[in-house]
Amino acid sequence: MRDLRLSIPSKGRLAEETIEFLKSCGIDIYKPNPRQYEGTIPIIPGLTVLFQRPTDIVISIRNGSVDFGITGLDVLEEHRGTDGEILLLHDSLGYGKCNLALAVPESWETVQTVADLRVEVESWGRPLKVATKFPELTSRFLTAQNIPFEIVSAEGTLEIAPAIGYADMISDLVSSGQTLRDNRLRPLADGLVQASQSVLVANHSVLKTNPQALAVVRQLLEFVEAFLRAKNNLSIFANMRGESAEAIGARMFSQTTIGGLNGPTISPIVVRDGDPNWHGVHVIIHRDQLFSAISELRAIGASGVVVTPVTYIFEEEPPRYKAMLAALA
Amino acid sequence: MRDLRLSIPSKGRLAEETIEFLKSCGIDIYKPNPRQYEGTIPIIPGLTVLFQRPTDIVISIRNGSVDFGITGLDVLEEHRGTDGEILLLHDSLGYGKCNLALAVPESWETVQTVADLRVEVESWGRPLKVATKFPELTSRFLTAQNIPFEIVSAEGTLEIAPAIGYADMISDLVSSGQTLRDNRLRPLADGLVQASQSVLVANHSVLKTNPQALAVVRQLLEFVEAFLRAKNNLSIFANMRGESAEAIGARMFSQTTIGGLNGPTISPIVVRDGDPNWHGVHVIIHRDQLFSAISELRAIGASGVVVTPVTYIFEEEPPRYKAMLAALA
Amino acid sequence: MRDLRLSIPSKGRLAEETIEFLKSCGIDIYKPNPRQYEGTIPIIPGLTVLFQRPTDIVISIRNGSVDFGITGLDVLEEHRGTDGEILLLHDSLGYGKCNLALAVPESWETVQTVADLRVEVESWGRPLKVATKFPELTSRFLTAQNIPFEIVSAEGTLEIAPAIGYADMISDLVSSGQTLRDNRLRPLADGLVQASQSVLVANHSVLKTNPQALAVVRQLLEFVEAFLRAKNNLSIFANMRGESAEAIGARMFSQTTIGGLNGPTISPIVVRDGDPNWHGVHVIIHRDQLFSAISELRAIGASGVVVTPVTYIFEEEPPRYKAMLAALA
Amino acid sequence: MRDLRLSIPSKGRLAEETIEFLKSCGIDIYKPNPRQYEGTIPIIPGLTVLFQRPTDIVISIRNGSVDFGITGLDVLEEHRGTDGEILLLHDSLGYGKCNLALAVPESWETVQTVADLRVEVESWGRPLKVATKFPELTSRFLTAQNIPFEIVSAEGTLEIAPAIGYADMISDLVSSGQTLRDNRLRPLADGLVQASQSVLVANHSVLKTNPQALAVVRQLLEFVEAFLRAKNNLSIFANMRGESAEAIGARMFSQTTIGGLNGPTISPIVVRDGDPNWHGVHVIIHRDQLFSAISELRAIGASGVVVTPVTYIFEEEPPRYKAMLAALA
Amino acid sequence: MRDLRLSIPSKGRLAEETIEFLKSCGIDIYKPNPRQYEGTIPIIPGLTVLFQRPTDIVISIRNGSVDFGITGLDVLEEHRGTDGEILLLHDSLGYGKCNLALAVPESWETVQTVADLRVEVESWGRPLKVATKFPELTSRFLTAQNIPFEIVSAEGTLEIAPAIGYADMISDLVSSGQTLRDNRLRPLADGLVQASQSVLVANHSVLKTNPQALAVVRQLLEFVEAFLRAKNNLSIFANMRGESAEAIGARMFSQTTIGGLNGPTISPIVVRDGDPNWHGVHVIIHRDQLFSAISELRAIGASGVVVTPVTYIFEEEPPRYKAMLAALA
Amino acid sequence: MRDLRLSIPSKGRLAEETIEFLKSCGIDIYKPNPRQYEGTIPIIPGLTVLFQRPTDIVISIRNGSVDFGITGLDVLEEHRGTDGEILLLHDSLGYGKCNLALAVPESWETVQTVADLRVEVESWGRPLKVATKFPELTSRFLTAQNIPFEIVSAEGTLEIAPAIGYADMISDLVSSGQTLRDNRLRPLADGLVQASQSVLVANHSVLKTNPQALAVVRQLLEFVEAFLRAKNNLSIFANMRGESAEAIGARMFSQTTIGGLNGPTISPIVVRDGDPNWHGVHVIIHRDQLFSAISELRAIGASGVVVTPVTYIFEEEPPRYKAMLAALA
Repeated sequence: MRDLRLSIPSKGRLAEETIEFLKSCGIDIYKPNPRQYEGTIPIIPGLTVLFQRPTDIVISIRNGSVDFGITGLDVLEEHRGTDGEILLLHDSLGYGKCNLALAVPESWETVQTVADLRVEVESWGRPLKVATKFPELTSRFLTAQNIPFEIVSAEGTLEIAPAIGYADMISDLVSSGQTLRDNRLRPLADGLVQASQSVLVANHSVLKTNPQALAVVRQLLEFVEAFLRAKNNLSIFANMRGESAEAIGARMFSQTTIGGLNGPTISPIVVRDGDPNWHGVHVIIHRDQLFSAISELRAIGASGVVVTPVTYIFEEEPPRYKAMLAALA
Repeated sequence: MRDLRLSIPSKGRLAEETIEFLKSCGIDIYKPNPRQYEGTIPIIPGLTVLFQRPTDIVISIRNGSVDFGITGLDVLEEHRGTDGEILLLHDSLGYGKCNLALAVPESWETVQTVADLRVEVESWGRPLKVATKFPELTSRFLTAQNIPFEIVSAEGTLEIAPAIGYADMISDLVSSGQTLRDNRLRPLADGLVQASQSVLVANHSVLKTNPQALAVVRQLLEFVEAFLRAKNNLSIFANMRGESAEAIGARMFSQTTIGGLNGPTISPIVVRDGDPNWHGVHVIIHRDQLFSAISELRAIGASGVVVTPVTYIFEEEPPRYKAMLAALA
Repeated sequence: MRDLRLSIPSKGRLAEETIEFLKSCGIDIYKPNPRQYEGTIPIIPGLTVLFQRPTDIVISIRNGSVDFGITGLDVLEEHRGTDGEILLLHDSLGYGKCNLALAVPESWETVQTVADLRVEVESWGRPLKVATKFPELTSRFLTAQNIPFEIVSAEGTLEIAPAIGYADMISDLVSSGQTLRDNRLRPLADGLVQASQSVLVANHSVLKTNPQALAVVRQLLEFVEAFLRAKNNLSIFANMRGESAEAIGARMFSQTTIGGLNGPTISPIVVRDGDPNWHGVHVIIHRDQLFSAISELRAIGASGVVVTPVTYIFEEEPPRYKAMLAALA
Repeated sequence: MRDLRLSIPSKGRLAEETIEFLKSCGIDIYKPNPRQYEGTIPIIPGLTVLFQRPTDIVISIRNGSVDFGITGLDVLEEHRGTDGEILLLHDSLGYGKCNLALAVPESWETVQTVADLRVEVESWGRPLKVATKFPELTSRFLTAQNIPFEIVSAEGTLEIAPAIGYADMISDLVSSGQTLRDNRLRPLADGLVQASQSVLVANHSVLKTNPQALAVVRQLLEFVEAFLRAKNNLSIFANMRGESAEAIGARMFSQTTIGGLNGPTISPIVVRDGDPNWHGVHVIIHRDQLFSAISELRAIGASGVVVTPVTYIFEEEPPRYKAMLAALA
Repeated sequence: MRDLRLSIPSKGRLAEETIEFLKSCGIDIYKPNPRQYEGTIPIIPGLTVLFQRPTDIVISIRNGSVDFGITGLDVLEEHRGTDGEILLLHDSLGYGKCNLALAVPESWETVQTVADLRVEVESWGRPLKVATKFPELTSRFLTAQNIPFEIVSAEGTLEIAPAIGYADMISDLVSSGQTLRDNRLRPLADGLVQASQSVLVANHSVLKTNPQALAVVRQLLEFVEAFLRAKNNLSIFANMRGESAEAIGARMFSQTTIGGLNGPTISPIVVRDGDPNWHGVHVIIHRDQLFSAISELRAIGASGVVVTPVTYIFEEEPPRYKAMLAALA
Repeated sequence: MRDLRLSIPSKGRLAEETIEFLKSCGIDIYKPNPRQYEGTIPIIPGLTVLFQRPTDIVISIRNGSVDFGITGLDVLEEHRGTDGEILLLHDSLGYGKCNLALAVPESWETVQTVADLRVEVESWGRPLKVATKFPELTSRFLTAQNIPFEIVSAEGTLEIAPAIGYADMISDLVSSGQTLRDNRLRPLADGLVQASQSVLVANHSVLKTNPQALAVVRQLLEFVEAFLRAKNNLSIFANMRGESAEAIGARMFSQTTIGGLNGPTISPIVVRDGDPNWHGVHVIIHRDQLFSAISELRAIGASGVVVTPVTYIFEEEPPRYKAMLAALA
């Protein structure tokens, strides 16, 4: 039987971000020849890494030539089809974010929403011509909105299509919106066709039949989830005076942000003057609650608060792994 | 009536080479905003320059949203269709060269030619799976060769398709062949599907009906042809002793490379010792015949040979412009 | 009421270092358009970030169009004026260090100190001509030194001013001194006009009248101080044998570098052979005392010393925040 | 007596363009040490090249520490003063073009012209606050327009001044206008304060008293003018049939673009079939008349038209040198 | 007595990696002038850093002009000689890895091993010509293999030596093997002459006679070893339920990867519902056993597993320092 | 028989300059794979281009594995030996200039010349230790100067050798002298060991025996010499009034810089007013005499002076080719 295969993006910013993301998860990729499209992951023997374009990743996994992949939710939804061959293992890896959205010429002043667009098109007596690289998702969206349309395919630079009469408007990926503005286009207020970011997918059949594939998925999900969970947390140590660990614990539980994953670790501290009531407190908090946590700690008498970084947080079993087992059953 | 439009490639090396090529022809493009897809050509008022992907250029000209374009012969042939809407004005601008060719795994040792491939596929009892971004040209080629096949589409990185079982072989653009070798593929000896380079095309209808479009084409072809002709020539001055201009001319006509476009310009030279028989000779020669020309000039007594660069050579009327008029008639 | 505003340097190395510094403090800046001069800080809602030149930052805060800023101490002192409108919140952010110093031609061999300079100038019978971009600070310094002088303004490249007779000497920012040497200039031994680094400043009036501004300052100072304190510390865990936590604590207090912020945290360790006297010791030390700390720990019997990084250290209340409240009162 | 000195910009695009411009004129600069601010020009011995900021160049020439300079017309007009010490030798070197212009917030919809601005300001009952790095030129312009104003100085990033209330509007250098648009500003239709490009200037006194300085100016102007004149011309050779040089000349004089600097050079051509009526014609034409010239040449029977580049065109005496002598007298 | 000296590579990737490596060890280098070959280490006063080529480092330490150095094992073994003047303090700093290996033309199909090579050369009746930059190591290897040979020296680009007949084969440094393949060469299966990586060396005499040198070595080895040990470890905290610390310890000792450096630190945790049996467990594990450690922890009931980074791990005394003392005695 | 081979430098600035130089001579190199060390020259079939280090080029030509090469005169003289196998075809290609020179510590104030050095060394009573990468040339120079010495080899960074006591002084390549100064070294006033630039060399035996090699050398020398000659010349056209070509010629011969290679070409000009005395004059002049030439032309009545570039100037037979034939005979 051939090696298992994981495909990741081969070019540009998405490629760099994916390699960086996996490295942060503890999964280093080794690619001996920069012009070849193969690599390995030393800590996961038996798994070959392939470098493909995002769309080819979806098609390769769907037809079984590749087993796992990291790609964009946009191209996944555009090309995943209806045969159920692609299983979505993780839908929010937290990078590669962009939006597929409808944009119209700035000069269409009365068209601010999708509803306005419908009114406008009805007044024309002909279908709307939309240029897009995502015909499937765009068609689904416009059909649901009851707007008569016709898709015009394009290889790139959709932004000039309306200006040159090639199409009436576009359905395209938008990040800062500056390129739209430079070409005198404007996104519709409620024209979001698909929000996208990087996702982890797998071939359904291989997971059902190959236990080694299941083991790889588990290892991938373990590290990915533990890393993503850790990214948003910090580890805090503080000194606090109190008659007992229980008394200090009670004070901490009375606050909202410093209760910890399970409970705080509280140990006695030896101080120079021999006061036996000092304790060291250790707790994990959400990074975006740091400011409140410090205030709460001070409010209940903590001092010498030391914050350290967290690399991974593992919970009992990766929830997405359990979800996948359920989906396979 | 809207401005006339010329589309050129918007990205990468082809974009840079096209801008550089037009500049060498004396046709400077002015693009005010790097993120916008529009520009102008100060010496050709009334002509807007658009920046599009090569394939979109073909489609835009075919459907009439753009009037003229520079694109690759490969995507032109792939997408030009059969309605005659695209007129090929110049088929060899001399840059952007590449070949669409068939490549097989290196391990297929008995398959060196297209004939070998046919034998191999016949032995399989199933059609050949070919991954390509050029389904039209590849299908036409394989059909002509009587090989049963099935096209597999791909977005990029075709080179790994055979290795992962996504396809049996590929039909792809090849320049140095190094990427093929790095992925253990080999081009077939006679598997050239389409040789390509940059070409100048126009919309047929607009040329038939819009005299201003004809004028623009003429100006474009004048400069392009004069530049391409000049690129391969050098201007030579030499001193030669002879009783008369006619005698010197006769000596020059006896040689093969120094006859000139029409005939050499021969003028008397005034020398310090008063010898009245010295003449200055001026002639245009082919750049790749320079070494022979120098030998021939020396052989008939020339000295002080000075070579200077040539920017343009104009002939009576651009031949390709005449060819186009004939095609329109 | 308009949003609160924080201005930071807009260009060059100082801009990069400021963004990096704030990021290290946990304060990420989001700037949607690289050519616009505005951004936001997601974790401090209601605060707009502006990008200005260091001098404009001082002037904007002084006249109240901006509320807070990070700039250089050199331009602050040059332009802060005497109206007390600028409050210096933090005077040593630890980066952007440079010195404003007097430099003379290398050929002035008898002028090594400011005193030598005074003697030299007195012998001339005319004032010293000094080229500088800091007329205020330089004037103040030379006046205090009793040297008659005249300031010559310049936009840049002060280093050639003495060579071309534009001025006698310069008062300029110096980092490695190589540019001075390349232009045959030499700094005076005691000619330091102003030592500078990046500082945090605020508008005095806004802090007196706007409680929301006070809250922002507190949040900025909390993170900045906690980060700067943490930068110079490390967290140490070690194993140590001792009858009791108190006995171990006593041994640690007998050393000079391992006493900890308050006192060490000491917990029993469970070892394989059941020896009940092993304890784990946790203490924070100064980074530059690591080598001594390890020696001291070994001297009192520690083993298995594990050092981990520290992200923040919070004390009871940011001292500079208290200092500011005092200044406002 | 010290060497003569020519100052050129020391930094950024203007520095690169000036070095490139002088090189194109045949004036190569040799700078031994990249961090030193001195160089030489091998073909003009006795002339030291200094690298300064544009404003410092104006001030240095005005106070006599530097003799000649290339700087921008904008900073020249801002800082040249009224003492007549700076002589403008060449006012259009053809690069470094930019415009000092008034710009207002996009939201001021009723203010499209300077007249609108006057009406607006009058309605306020207080002077207009204008942020600018060009107080002198801006004041002169606004005074002439009868608009009450107050100048606010700034070091950079003027574009945010109106947004933060630091000023009402700005007077700043504009090239593509994109930065204005990104900061929601709009130039006034007739708000051009000063059009600028690179210029060549000299100190008036040194030219009056130092004959060697005059010789250097002559050499600089010779090359600069000959290069600028050549930049816009091409050299054309063509073959033409005619009974005599005079007959051909007459035909050429009947056309508008091919008369030549003085008259065409016409020489007999020796052709293979012995026809004695062929002549070679050589003429210099304006580059932007090339297309017409080719048409005219064809119209009167020319063929084999060869175009070659021109490096310099010298006329009898540099007109600007004569103008300078007049100004000095 | 002069300052002590540490030489490190002066150029290219090895220079960057060495500076980065020392920085990771906590040993920052300060180099005031990029073009000078000297620097200092603020935390080790009295030690000058020199920047030399790897081979010059070996020679300088051998002849006593330099005291310590980081260089490659390859050039060390090539140039260390037999006088025992160079002491190898640390033989595996973990970066700068490469192999000195024998490579033959791809066309030598019967030569796959060193034994094959011997047979081949014997059949020639003349010695093998080997091009190399490592004559000493290559001679030693080939002599040991009983192959008659002749060394041909070369400055670089050894890869073309066989193709042009300059040598029969090469002995060269190999990393990915791609350059060999591009030049149609192939490494022998067992042709490894010397495996190399960065190493730390010292002059033997200086260590014997200069106690200050011993102190520097100790400090270098302390940090280097503590960093290298830490690089492969992680710090783990987990929550676990158990009647006592001893009971939990017993469960942990029953597993293979979570025993810790000495023993785990186990402290009671205060939980919200008052259950007194929860404990916090802290242990150091090998980074490459993380996946197993998590499984083992879960197997014995752990939850809330938090993993944090480790900067240094110090053991009782640097083993390599002890080894060095032994070597000196 | 194998193809003929030309070796050129493989790395760094010398490699780029050589490829650029050959291209300017009209000799384009085609290198299909950037990591391979082979290429071809389309206009010289049968000649393979190899890319080697400068020293390896000398050795390869000397031992006959390569036929021709471009390398530095410094390494040629260091390694050419005494067997006469290397023939120097062109000794001044005009780029890659540098000097091998002696440099001493700046602190040796009494040693300014080689004679001073001899006195200094004699006073020591021990030989001078000189670090160099050019032992042969340096030994020859010091022996001729009667200075007792000892050579110390080094791989690079010679500049620190004196500072660390590795050698007393150095003999090294010097360009701007800045690196010497940064390391407190100073070149001796008369310590030039060898001036160097790029040179063209060939193997003596191959030229004696292989007529095809002679043909290649001729072609190389033709283009190289014609290009180098042209580099320093310009082509001038001017209009001049005179009764006859002879009269004008006489006036030109009375001047010093405008006599031309042989004599000027003088043709009648047809002017608008019919004046029959206008002539067009064409002459080649030295580029560095342009300013004088213009003055002289104006002095004898010329106007409308047009200067155009020159690509090549061929004389009757390449003098260096004749020199080589003589050397071979």
